[in-house]
Amino acid sequence: MSFKKITIVGVGLIGGSVGLACKKNGIAESITGFGRTSAHLEKALELGAIDSYELELSQAVNNADLVLLSTPMGTIFEQLPHIIPHLKPGAVLTDVGSTKTRLIEAAEELMPQGVYFVGGHPIAGRESSGVEAALANLFCGAKTILTPTTATNNDALVRVKAFWEQIGSQVVLMDAEQHDRTLAVISHLPHMVAYALVNAVAELDNHDNQLIALSAGGFRDFTRIASSDAVMWRDICLSNSQAIAGVIDRFQQVLDRLKQHIKSGDAQGLQKEFEAARRVKQKL
Amino acid sequence: MSFKKITIVGVGLIGGSVGLACKKNGIAESITGFGRTSAHLEKALELGAIDSYELELSQAVNNADLVLLSTPMGTIFEQLPHIIPHLKPGAVLTDVGSTKTRLIEAAEELMPQGVYFVGGHPIAGRESSGVEAALANLFCGAKTILTPTTATNNDALVRVKAFWEQIGSQVVLMDAEQHDRTLAVISHLPHMVAYALVNAVAELDNHDNQLIALSAGGFRDFTRIASSDAVMWRDICLSNSQAIAGVIDRFQQVLDRLKQHIKSGDAQGLQKEFEAARRVKQKL
Repeated sequence: MSFKKITIVGVGLIGGSVGLACKKNGIAESITGFGRTSAHLEKALELGAIDSYELELSQAVNNADLVLLSTPMGTIFEQLPHIIPHLKPGAVLTDVGSTKTRLIEAAEELMPQGVYFVGGHPIAGRESSGVEAALANLFCGAKTILTPTTATNNDALVRVKAFWEQIGSQVVLMDAEQHDRTLAVISHLPHMVAYALVNAVAELDNHDNQLIALSAGGFRDFTRIASSDAVMWRDICLSNSQAIAGVIDRFQQVLDRLKQHIKSGDAQGLQKEFEAARRVKQKL
Repeated sequence: MSFKKITIVGVGLIGGSVGLACKKNGIAESITGFGRTSAHLEKALELGAIDSYELELSQAVNNADLVLLSTPMGTIFEQLPHIIPHLKPGAVLTDVGSTKTRLIEAAEELMPQGVYFVGGHPIAGRESSGVEAALANLFCGAKTILTPTTATNNDALVRVKAFWEQIGSQVVLMDAEQHDRTLAVISHLPHMVAYALVNAVAELDNHDNQLIALSAGGFRDFTRIASSDAVMWRDICLSNSQAIAGVIDRFQQVLDRLKQHIKSGDAQGLQKEFEAARRVKQKL
């Protein structure tokens, strides 16, 4: 057993999948879940993602060897001051938040001597959310980014790295700012573009109800991407606003270039753009 | 048999699927394919999408009762003058082109008395292209838009409508300009946005090769949408430039609004945008 007691704060898709994966791989003696109401926690218990639960945060993290924060970013910020004072000496606190710089600053400021914070982010997910969608193998083959700082305890980092590897993930170490810039490009920007596209089409459709009914392939993929949890994405935007706004600017420049080719009837320019995009898929 | 001889000009994914569907449903006595080189046509023959082929356009359409144009838009414009003079009296000419207004103008100007043009567009496709990807049931449950004008012969329209229905499609009649505006929104805009996003990410990645390697879900869906045939999309852009540029403008306004919410940290505005997009998926 790597840890005697693991506490999962927020037992949804990610937290629940971590619980199932830990149970499957025999990583903890016991897994405690925390949530605001008992309904979801009863479901998590029934699905075998946790062994017990608490509705009081200080009770939930009491005596835990590893505490995993997997609520939306905004909630993590609110919960930190109610968790950290109750951690036992030697406890490791980690998270699965989609942005890292601001969270690490907040956590490191609050952490006393002898308890350790390691920022983390598994690049894994599903369309569906909630513990009902949790999977024991969600992290198998997925990458998990850990973002140590100069203040990070090395033993704690090694233990958190081993933890993710034991549940099937490949761990990548990265500076928190680099993580946030990287995710802004590969995840946050695509989601912002999908949300804007779906809303633009819906607004254009107000004048012509046939549009969405006639839609096929391409547009329907966008609606799937743009149906991710609204609160989670709100919090990601608030906590990584500068990087996201910056990559939206860059995207807008590329779209403007394409629009100019269309307006000027530049056949060669258009074909070049489309062929370049096709090559990216071939690289994957 | 609805038609004695059907000629399919361009036996790729769509043309090949029409051939397979016609054979499966016993719609023609014989199906002739036309292409520029024999390699693809031999493949189409082998797959059973056509019964024979010709490398000379006038020969291919000679004595045909129905001629289906399924080459990229730019090629259709070049082929029209080499097809129309060789059509027999009573022949019906139709197409599967993704934009309609300019093609219909060109076709109607060239059509002599006694042969009939009906513009069409099946809303169906696959990621893969070429006759190897053709499916007999590609049009089952898909919508096909026909765009009659005041010059369209009604009997020809009825026959083309029955043709698409016999191979499983639901036919929607629409004005050509309305078709082009509609497709600009539900198909051309999503593709332009996907192409621009994939190219923007690739350009940002020049400074950091880890990016695309770390990408998951969302971005990979975009690369799939943005790997459609470059020549086909070049021609769609050239033949529907005004409508596409117009909807890109509208999209840019919505993305700008979202970017402003991000820059100003407007939590409520962000959540409202994301929830609105989620509702669109629920409507589908």
